[in-house]
Amino acid sequence: MYKSEQLALSLKQLIHSGVWKHNDKLPSLRQQAQASGFSLMTVMHAYQALEAQGLIYAKEKLGYFVADPAQYQQHQNRDTRVTINSRVFRYLKSLQDPNIIPFGSAFPDSRLLHCNKLMQILSRQARSTLSHEHGPSLPPGNLALRQLIAQRYAMQGIPTDPDDIVITSGGLDALNLSLQAMTQSGDYVLLQETSFYGAWQAAERLGLNVITIPTHPEYGLDLIAFEHAVQKYPIKVCLLMLNSQNPVGYTVSDEIKAKLAQLLDQYQVYLIEDDVYEELYFGTKKPRSMKYFDHSNKVLHCSSFSKTLGAGFRLGWVHAAQFSEVIQHTQLMSTLSVNSFIQNALVDYLSHRHYDKHLKALRQQLEDLKTRYHDYLIQGLPEAFQIHYYPSGYFLWMTLPNELCGDEIYQQLRQEQIIIAPGSLFYLKEGQQHHIRINCSFEFDMPMQQALDRLIEVCVDEYKNMML
Amino acid sequence: MYKSEQLALSLKQLIHSGVWKHNDKLPSLRQQAQASGFSLMTVMHAYQALEAQGLIYAKEKLGYFVADPAQYQQHQNRDTRVTINSRVFRYLKSLQDPNIIPFGSAFPDSRLLHCNKLMQILSRQARSTLSHEHGPSLPPGNLALRQLIAQRYAMQGIPTDPDDIVITSGGLDALNLSLQAMTQSGDYVLLQETSFYGAWQAAERLGLNVITIPTHPEYGLDLIAFEHAVQKYPIKVCLLMLNSQNPVGYTVSDEIKAKLAQLLDQYQVYLIEDDVYEELYFGTKKPRSMKYFDHSNKVLHCSSFSKTLGAGFRLGWVHAAQFSEVIQHTQLMSTLSVNSFIQNALVDYLSHRHYDKHLKALRQQLEDLKTRYHDYLIQGLPEAFQIHYYPSGYFLWMTLPNELCGDEIYQQLRQEQIIIAPGSLFYLKEGQQHHIRINCSFEFDMPMQQALDRLIEVCVDEYKNMML
Repeated sequence: MYKSEQLALSLKQLIHSGVWKHNDKLPSLRQQAQASGFSLMTVMHAYQALEAQGLIYAKEKLGYFVADPAQYQQHQNRDTRVTINSRVFRYLKSLQDPNIIPFGSAFPDSRLLHCNKLMQILSRQARSTLSHEHGPSLPPGNLALRQLIAQRYAMQGIPTDPDDIVITSGGLDALNLSLQAMTQSGDYVLLQETSFYGAWQAAERLGLNVITIPTHPEYGLDLIAFEHAVQKYPIKVCLLMLNSQNPVGYTVSDEIKAKLAQLLDQYQVYLIEDDVYEELYFGTKKPRSMKYFDHSNKVLHCSSFSKTLGAGFRLGWVHAAQFSEVIQHTQLMSTLSVNSFIQNALVDYLSHRHYDKHLKALRQQLEDLKTRYHDYLIQGLPEAFQIHYYPSGYFLWMTLPNELCGDEIYQQLRQEQIIIAPGSLFYLKEGQQHHIRINCSFEFDMPMQQALDRLIEVCVDEYKNMML
Repeated sequence: MYKSEQLALSLKQLIHSGVWKHNDKLPSLRQQAQASGFSLMTVMHAYQALEAQGLIYAKEKLGYFVADPAQYQQHQNRDTRVTINSRVFRYLKSLQDPNIIPFGSAFPDSRLLHCNKLMQILSRQARSTLSHEHGPSLPPGNLALRQLIAQRYAMQGIPTDPDDIVITSGGLDALNLSLQAMTQSGDYVLLQETSFYGAWQAAERLGLNVITIPTHPEYGLDLIAFEHAVQKYPIKVCLLMLNSQNPVGYTVSDEIKAKLAQLLDQYQVYLIEDDVYEELYFGTKKPRSMKYFDHSNKVLHCSSFSKTLGAGFRLGWVHAAQFSEVIQHTQLMSTLSVNSFIQNALVDYLSHRHYDKHLKALRQQLEDLKTRYHDYLIQGLPEAFQIHYYPSGYFLWMTLPNELCGDEIYQQLRQEQIIIAPGSLFYLKEGQQHHIRINCSFEFDMPMQQALDRLIEVCVDEYKNMML
């Protein structure tokens, strides 16, 4: 035990035993140091530890005082992480109700992702004698699977060693492990102001200082704001989504990506790239990963099969290059390993080009649906409602006329069991949010159309009220 | 940004720009406070932040000085968690080599766990139309599965609501989520001195202060040491394994468990019970979980299917009672959810009594193997080697004669591709460890017998050398 911990403990006992009572002033740092024989530093550390635990409080220029024991108990039970998280939690819970219309869902309709071939392989594998091999697959995960993923990188012009890849329990696990391996509590990370809540939840959980930059209205990523931020703050890692960004939907151009890579090198900042939508582009050319432009080994590229084969499989990975081992260490301390049964099945599946066929069909279906939802909404809504259509993914991002609040629309529709995602879920700053996100991966059938009609009606009513 | 962060940042810039150079003395706290207009507290916070980042260092009674920039860089790249973890990591890596004899493995032989029925169900499920349902299963996990697990608790005299249960990605995930939900950095946790490395890795990762108590030679858990520790330290949570404890093997008696429950209540300490070996008892009566004795809701009970159906499935749970929601929050920020495909299959499997039949056969096989390994080792080794046989699980814990070191035996056998688990992996304190752990779940065939012969020879040789 450190000296400061010893001291903190003995002070704590004095408070618990009532020697020092609520609002008693503690000896000054100097007095305490003289009395205890410890250095001023040690005393300061001890006092701060007690303050952090809520046992004592500081008054500026007056010194430290014993806190209210009732409040100390509260403090003990309080979990700041939960407070931060609870809005997202309640929201995700509301989506679990099977009776709702899930326009707010983060996941594509699982019927689109269903893949007969993969199910056949899973079925065959369960029957085969090889299925004896259901021991844990320790980090970095199944070698054959890592080889197949490395091949897919190589085909995109990113030479990859299978040992660069770490298999994870889904994309969020990849993000979390990367962030955890690359940072220590108190470090600075940079996020986009409007971004996937999982990213800032991960940052909050690790006690990181979050710096944000706004979304660029045209390019998505604002390079000037980025450079300004890395100049101003000691940012160690940035966590960005550059392809089919969730929730807005933009894909950053190659030109901007190349410049970002230069800035990462110049300022020695690492990038954790969340690229879970990388396969859901509508054009003929796959958008590039930042890894392609990364000549100074600054990028950790996270992706998964959740948005293409089903989030229920919990299968993701990170291309961690030189950080592979650090990430494996972190993994051994948390989830330990990844489902080996699914990993084995994916090896078989990916070896036979089934995946590319599946992706091709999936992209076409998503494009058709997105166009249909978009056109329907455009027709029904006043011009003041701006619907951002980007040719990838399955989200439509809508900017409401200035005074209309996304939370308001969300609350109203929720009463009718229609759930949309209010912009506030994705916005790191305080204040009203004038956006909503709509998942348009669901079959455009009668119930969906009726739900869209209600969405339009609620929006129009609110808009009219506002104009009064 | 807090004032202290502002100040720290500006000081950092002065150091980076070379205004203050290596070994320059910084202004005293008082001088800095006067110069900057900030309070003494603020200045202190800022200096400490810089110290924590390795930018400056403190000399007792002399003040703060600018650190060596080269060392600062090192500090930036250093990851203390990795240091702590790297011995376990290297050890686990060595076990992945398919050519070794895995006496050191933590997992039972997967051939013993193989279960045709479960594989048939998985196979059928993959073929069925229901398999469309591979969306994510958000916390707390599949309801039908939680109901079946709740039933199993009820059969043991522990009334359980399905909502008390949170499904996790294996037992280690259950431990981690529980510990994370119940503590904040700096809190005190109590562990057994000789315990599963995953437990202290989890504690280290969360920045907790770890207090240990020694193993009681007869009862396993030392209640006097326990009470002494909770009196002396502000312990919030203890993390204990009481049934078939890993690595030693003991099961704590009902009497001691009941007393422990009283102490938890009396001192308001929570218990995270790691009970992943609960089903591997050899007698006719299942040992009780602490949850049975827990009338003051102080126990979170963690278990899994990893040691009975295969660790590759990554399926565990925690009976979290009133903390269920807090744990779900934590889960949403890390692994998000658990494989829904395997959860669905387990619902079918557990509904049909297959599991109890499987467990009965498994217990018998493990008992036969453990007896056989034990008898063989007893016959071959001098009496000074003490082999602890407990009627559960698949580990034999061996106490080496006093001066013999487990690491030494491990190193020697490793050269012959025989891996045992040295006691040092499980020992939280510094110093030599005179134990080894042997996994005796592998078929007792010729190669195994030969490996045991080599183990015996190495032990005997070392023992003879010691006696010289």
